Amino acid sequence: MARGKFITIEGTEGVGKSTNLTFVHEWLTVRGIDVLVTREPGGTPLAEQLRELLLATREEPVAHKAELLMIFAARAQHLEQVIKPALAQGTWVLCDRFTDATYAYQGGGRGLDKTVIGELEHLVQDTLRPDLTLILDIAPELGLQRAAARAELDRFEREDIAFFNRVRAAYRERADANPAHYAQVDASQTLNEVQRDIAGCLARLLSEPPSLSL
Amino acid sequence: MARGKFITIEGTEGVGKSTNLTFVHEWLTVRGIDVLVTREPGGTPLAEQLRELLLATREEPVAHKAELLMIFAARAQHLEQVIKPALAQGTWVLCDRFTDATYAYQGGGRGLDKTVIGELEHLVQDTLRPDLTLILDIAPELGLQRAAARAELDRFEREDIAFFNRVRAAYRERADANPAHYAQVDASQTLNEVQRDIAGCLARLLSEPPSLSL
Repeated sequence: MARGKFITIEGTEGVGKSTNLTFVHEWLTVRGIDVLVTREPGGTPLAEQLRELLLATREEPVAHKAELLMIFAARAQHLEQVIKPALAQGTWVLCDRFTDATYAYQGGGRGLDKTVIGELEHLVQDTLRPDLTLILDIAPELGLQRAAARAELDRFEREDIAFFNRVRAAYRERADANPAHYAQVDASQTLNEVQRDIAGCLARLLSEPPSLSL
Repeated sequence: MARGKFITIEGTEGVGKSTNLTFVHEWLTVRGIDVLVTREPGGTPLAEQLRELLLATREEPVAHKAELLMIFAARAQHLEQVIKPALAQGTWVLCDRFTDATYAYQGGGRGLDKTVIGELEHLVQDTLRPDLTLILDIAPELGLQRAAARAELDRFEREDIAFFNRVRAAYRERADANPAHYAQVDASQTLNEVQRDIAGCLARLLSEPPSLSL
């Protein structure tokens, strides 16, 4: 059986990930594709508990390497329990953030060595990579204005503009280096324009031959 | 200033770690040494939260790599927030379990690749290693009888005898490979005999020249 395709959605705070995740889900579902929607960090009970620990604001400064290892711990659990079994049975997986977020936030934002991130990626994922990563791109100032209008800010959303500019630059660098599997979408456009661009990416992905192995 | 020395106590379940940790603490304290007593996984609020997630019995099977990464995440936090600052100001650190437990439980017990454990050890600890590791050794059957008489068993204590035999063998292998920094203590002896052996190790450590760098 052909394995399902693996799509991830990325971007800085307030870029419209949730809205567009729902759009992608519906776009695929109406075309008869079985889609599992999930998120990182999270996606299993244990991984969601790790997410809570990661996002909580706390007195104690969190060591950058502790943060990085918690994220990959949650990812290892999510992959084994949810993502790999779903892909293996032909279900497509649509994930709100994945390893590109680690390169962007912990690599770009926190300044952790990308070689180390790459080693952990290999340890946890082996050769598994998303078939398509949609990077919603917006100026951090604009995104943070949107995010601030929502609930209380988590430990990441409290970072400053310089941090999010580094995150954005890291996302762009990843996308530029591998255009076959990444699409950068200008999220400052109207929602209709953003979703027209996303639909174009999905149509191209759908026309590609199925992946056969995990 | 000379940095403090770093002592870790290891062993399988029911081997008498708590009793002998108290003994080591008192032995050093009466000799005028400032000692910080801590434990792994744990030792900071975040690392203790990770400990809770690790020990909890749960429906969801825990991926071995997720477990391994959670342990090193807690360790990274513990090192940065507690262990390294204490050693740097000349305080000795006495820790209930450390990286040898990872080699023993996740390497020996779970069968994870020791090379991977070594890479994570290097990532999180750089060159920092305990000055002395006391391995309390006992037949797992006997230790588990003692542990079973206590509170409800945690996720590790529920493993079978074969698991603990592998853990014990891994501890012994580590100690045999590096006798300068490890002491194996026969914990099936009377408590007086065990503590006479431990005191001998501590006297030797105390007579060694101080360590100068972290």
